[in-house]
Amino acid sequence: MSEFLSDCGENEIVDGLLQILGGPLNQQRSDVLVGPGDDCAVIAGTTDREDILLKADSVIEGVHYQPDEKPELVGEKALKRAISDIAAMGGNPTHAVVSVACSGEVPVAYLRAVYHGLVQTSERFDLAIVGGDTAGLPDRSPAVFSVSLLGRVPAGEAVLRSGAQPGDQLYVTGRLGGSLPSRRHLSFEPRIEEGIWLREQGVSAMMDLSDGLGKDLPRLATASGCGFVIDQSLLPLHPGCSPKNAICDGEDYELLVASATQLPATCPGGLSLTRIGAIVSEGEGQAVEGGWEYFTNQGSVCRDA
Amino acid sequence: MSEFLSDCGENEIVDGLLQILGGPLNQQRSDVLVGPGDDCAVIAGTTDREDILLKADSVIEGVHYQPDEKPELVGEKALKRAISDIAAMGGNPTHAVVSVACSGEVPVAYLRAVYHGLVQTSERFDLAIVGGDTAGLPDRSPAVFSVSLLGRVPAGEAVLRSGAQPGDQLYVTGRLGGSLPSRRHLSFEPRIEEGIWLREQGVSAMMDLSDGLGKDLPRLATASGCGFVIDQSLLPLHPGCSPKNAICDGEDYELLVASATQLPATCPGGLSLTRIGAIVSEGEGQAVEGGWEYFTNQGSVCRDA
Repeated sequence: MSEFLSDCGENEIVDGLLQILGGPLNQQRSDVLVGPGDDCAVIAGTTDREDILLKADSVIEGVHYQPDEKPELVGEKALKRAISDIAAMGGNPTHAVVSVACSGEVPVAYLRAVYHGLVQTSERFDLAIVGGDTAGLPDRSPAVFSVSLLGRVPAGEAVLRSGAQPGDQLYVTGRLGGSLPSRRHLSFEPRIEEGIWLREQGVSAMMDLSDGLGKDLPRLATASGCGFVIDQSLLPLHPGCSPKNAICDGEDYELLVASATQLPATCPGGLSLTRIGAIVSEGEGQAVEGGWEYFTNQGSVCRDA
Repeated sequence: MSEFLSDCGENEIVDGLLQILGGPLNQQRSDVLVGPGDDCAVIAGTTDREDILLKADSVIEGVHYQPDEKPELVGEKALKRAISDIAAMGGNPTHAVVSVACSGEVPVAYLRAVYHGLVQTSERFDLAIVGGDTAGLPDRSPAVFSVSLLGRVPAGEAVLRSGAQPGDQLYVTGRLGGSLPSRRHLSFEPRIEEGIWLREQGVSAMMDLSDGLGKDLPRLATASGCGFVIDQSLLPLHPGCSPKNAICDGEDYELLVASATQLPATCPGGLSLTRIGAIVSEGEGQAVEGGWEYFTNQGSVCRDA
């Protein structure tokens, strides 16, 4: 086992923690329908009509945003990242809590502007920020904004990462690549309406693309016990982007979908839906590498793109 | 308005943020029964039997724990702090998510030990850790562990900070003071059973003592639109502690309770319940100051103790 987190890939770290969370000490409750490892947890609601979704996510100064970016956009991004995970289950966001940890050097007006971004986003997605906490960090520490978000989905209908089957076609919403130079990593739109519509189409697996197709697609395939093939010439690219950007850049917040039935080329609201490949049997597909590595604080080499 | 967070008291910062969260943009949902500002948010459940509680809280290296403290206890504390807030509403904890932000210098074994502490605590309180996220911080940044916790309480029965009335007696569970030198800030016990029992006794207001009686009692009184008097000679002290310790030290995680009816000297499990004073009309009570200030990273002067 690696000695320090910086020696590990994010998957290795997360897998190690999931092993602990998946152990017998954490298996007390029968109402946990989907535990750690998917975009959201799924908890049985108190009626048989709805399940509850729960997601925690953080944005960190210098990692997910830069100090010179508008604080309203930082708050917006912090909440939208979690909303995107609710979208990836085919759900609707309902209630959020926000934890802030930052140093006393932060101007009061900056923190208030972050909160203005949070509440503007909460209004747009018809959710409520119901609480949170604030805590001080030593001077020169990067600020950390952690959002936990509740959502709802019709009972038994949350779309998981693990439902893909060999023969499914792979689709992505929108376009990929170049999120950082274009600032789309701040201005992206969580795909709530599209996620609900895709769930209603009976798609077999879904996740949001936060770390890049090169990291996220293998996660979906692994969760489903399958392999995958993609045709890089089909990847829907933002202007000026290469397939390598689409695979490695990350922070697209588009939906990656596996479906046994053919899907149309656009979602009802007009967003493009592009077939990029297929799910195949385990061991038969490609290896695609690349995407964002957090603990080494750099993207990994994009070896086959 | 102060320019930097370090110029502000925690109450001033929180009040400013609450003002933003209390604005019209964040008032969309009729199912929010109690929004920001209490120990937990209260959300109407989908049946009329139960309400949902939601709380976010963080522990930070160098603030809430020291790097040389056992990592299992760090995980335990991170979860127990949030459990204590569920206790303060008279509820039961059910599901948690954990966000970790730390540098790549952290040993893998350390992070795994924190998670072992988390799951051991989850088992003890019959809750499930259902997810979370990990993110990297620059080297030499303090680690931040954020926990969001769901809980349940019978519909309409959550005990708020705001329910105290002039004439209520004030009580605290257990003993106060000296949490840091005694390491009780790590080994404390969230008062779930006592909180449920106190709710069943029909107490009028309750909160947990995390920042010290000197900061927390004025918060309960203010939320209730009341004043308070306490008799410092009645304060239940840990051995070696003065009333000043009880008022200023913080991190006791005992329950502070206002009740119109007289309560017995012990809770059913044997924990002491001590009358320390009373709620009076607004403007009539004492001023008690002291307790922990996060953004200046020091306790404030304990002026009247």
